[in-house]
Amino acid sequence: MARVFIAGGGVIGLSIAWRAAQRGFEVTVADPAPGSGSSHAAAGMLTPVSEAAYTEKELFALGAASLQRYPDFAAELTAVTGLPTGFGVTGTLQVGYDRDDLAVIDELRVLQDSLGVPGQRLTGRECRRLEPMLDPSVCGGLLAAADGSIDPRRLVRALLAAAETAGVRVIRQPVTRIEGRTARLGDGTVAEADWVVLAAGWNTVHIEGLPPSAVPPVRPVKGQIVRLRAPAGFLSRSVRGVVRGSAVYLVPRPDGELVVGATQEELGVDTRVTAGGLWELLRDARTLVPGITELEFTEAVARLRPGTPDNGPVLGPCAADGLVLATGHFRNGVLLTPITADVIVDYLQTGRWPEVAAHFTVGRFGTEGVTSGGTT
Amino acid sequence: MARVFIAGGGVIGLSIAWRAAQRGFEVTVADPAPGSGSSHAAAGMLTPVSEAAYTEKELFALGAASLQRYPDFAAELTAVTGLPTGFGVTGTLQVGYDRDDLAVIDELRVLQDSLGVPGQRLTGRECRRLEPMLDPSVCGGLLAAADGSIDPRRLVRALLAAAETAGVRVIRQPVTRIEGRTARLGDGTVAEADWVVLAAGWNTVHIEGLPPSAVPPVRPVKGQIVRLRAPAGFLSRSVRGVVRGSAVYLVPRPDGELVVGATQEELGVDTRVTAGGLWELLRDARTLVPGITELEFTEAVARLRPGTPDNGPVLGPCAADGLVLATGHFRNGVLLTPITADVIVDYLQTGRWPEVAAHFTVGRFGTEGVTSGGTT
Repeated sequence: MARVFIAGGGVIGLSIAWRAAQRGFEVTVADPAPGSGSSHAAAGMLTPVSEAAYTEKELFALGAASLQRYPDFAAELTAVTGLPTGFGVTGTLQVGYDRDDLAVIDELRVLQDSLGVPGQRLTGRECRRLEPMLDPSVCGGLLAAADGSIDPRRLVRALLAAAETAGVRVIRQPVTRIEGRTARLGDGTVAEADWVVLAAGWNTVHIEGLPPSAVPPVRPVKGQIVRLRAPAGFLSRSVRGVVRGSAVYLVPRPDGELVVGATQEELGVDTRVTAGGLWELLRDARTLVPGITELEFTEAVARLRPGTPDNGPVLGPCAADGLVLATGHFRNGVLLTPITADVIVDYLQTGRWPEVAAHFTVGRFGTEGVTSGGTT
Repeated sequence: MARVFIAGGGVIGLSIAWRAAQRGFEVTVADPAPGSGSSHAAAGMLTPVSEAAYTEKELFALGAASLQRYPDFAAELTAVTGLPTGFGVTGTLQVGYDRDDLAVIDELRVLQDSLGVPGQRLTGRECRRLEPMLDPSVCGGLLAAADGSIDPRRLVRALLAAAETAGVRVIRQPVTRIEGRTARLGDGTVAEADWVVLAAGWNTVHIEGLPPSAVPPVRPVKGQIVRLRAPAGFLSRSVRGVVRGSAVYLVPRPDGELVVGATQEELGVDTRVTAGGLWELLRDARTLVPGITELEFTEAVARLRPGTPDNGPVLGPCAADGLVLATGHFRNGVLLTPITADVIVDYLQTGRWPEVAAHFTVGRFGTEGVTSGGTT
């Protein structure tokens, strides 16, 4: 029984752990506080099409493939744990606040057509018919009916329960050093394994001992996010908007939580919720959906996404024998959870890197100039 | 040794308790969570002059008299407990954002002159010389150099310690009923006393058994307030502003806390922090002091002030024998703490109601139509 050691217990590390244990690996996950990193802040929109950009066609394809796996993934998780994940296919409505904002939406529509996923163009009136809380100024939108959403905090709880039921050992310690197939933990103990999987998000840069050529180029990208409490039916689906050039989204959950996100700030290691971040999110959300004014504010939180130079994750084998990368998921960690777990575990089992993720190995960045603790 | 029972352990109830115990009364205070009501939200500005209004000259005089007592009051509290209160005489700068806002400030100046406390009129440039973080648009202001401020949460801790040291018994139970000189607590126990002091803020209306003619006309007025964390010297004094007709204040504390307040909402019993309340406070504070954008957000809280028909407190004896009122302090509870304690305890000791507070007995409202649980 081959041993797999996973550094990092967010949605990525935990889902790999669960899937690997299901296939007979002896799995250990180390994380000082599983699920408390960027998984804790994530809104849980599952919307490869709305996130698509011209330079990121491979990322769109990976996200679309992951979304396809989500219904079975979520159903299986709930079946083995009895825990809900909040998963649902409720669609995403993208709207433009003014004519200039709508032009951005229309460009996105052209891109989506070129990707083979034509969105449904709606007038402002049609948008408000779908979501009556939208401001009368909203002048048009695009419906992606196949998009889903999930509650990342529930997902973490279910993954933890499923992993532990499947025999995964969860050690609540940080990983401080990885050398060959050996990991050193915060308490000084050492774990040996046949495979070491690096799923530590942006904390990757804090792990010593990795050969420079194997270190994925991740940087922390701060995101602030607000949680409100809404009455049933306030919004029926995720709403993404461009408001005078500024992007904002509102994700409703079955339990009444309404998540408003998210800032994107290049400030290094900074997880402070700021007056300005909060104000911007509330300003844009309020412009799009004035009724949020009356909603209860329950939480504001900031976390660090693992950003990469091309916004895509860094997956698979690298120059260091036995080391497998699963980090750099940036804004797409929750969306890419099922497929990341599948491709990593397929690789551990077969030694072959799956075609669907061929684009995302660390080799695409070259290796020169990538150093531990740094950017590219 | 006469027994005094005090319903309510906010800054008012606790200061009366402390002062009464010092003068030899046997004192009991009942409150389910002392200091967790409006005292917990209060910003702690001590500014009778900035709060003055044309119809409230008596209230201004009472506030000014209370402010005069504050230095000794705070010094004594710290001397007997060793606890800081954050008290300081740092002044208040009132500013107008645009010309219309400045017109409001200028009206206030005329009023202040008529009250015999001429404020110092400053140009926009002079305002920014005092507070360099002010927005360049701020076009003028008024300096009240003698104003002070205090940290209400530290004040509560010091008052609790001082009261308990002086022999006050604090029972962590709500008062559900007052009848004659007897109070019933949430756990069903009954306390008898020679004097019952009603210092329960707006919770007064939840206490049964009071004769209608003795019930002060208080109503809950919701206030939301935000706490940020600022570097040393960010602001040097309390700043109050009128921003496009909307009032906001920023109160800096020695420990780096910056309090931004406050909404004033007539919504009945509602202590939800709302997206709209938060947004408005941050919008106005940010307009006045753009640099708050970068400050850490640490807390948002909402509490209910005990409002009265004329915004003044309801103090002293009433139609019910042995019942003494000390409630309805609305926006001025912290400012009026020293004088309220003094006049109530003077009355308990002498049976004479002090001239300085003569205006503030419940009789000024008449008694018709005032019912328990209701408004006037």
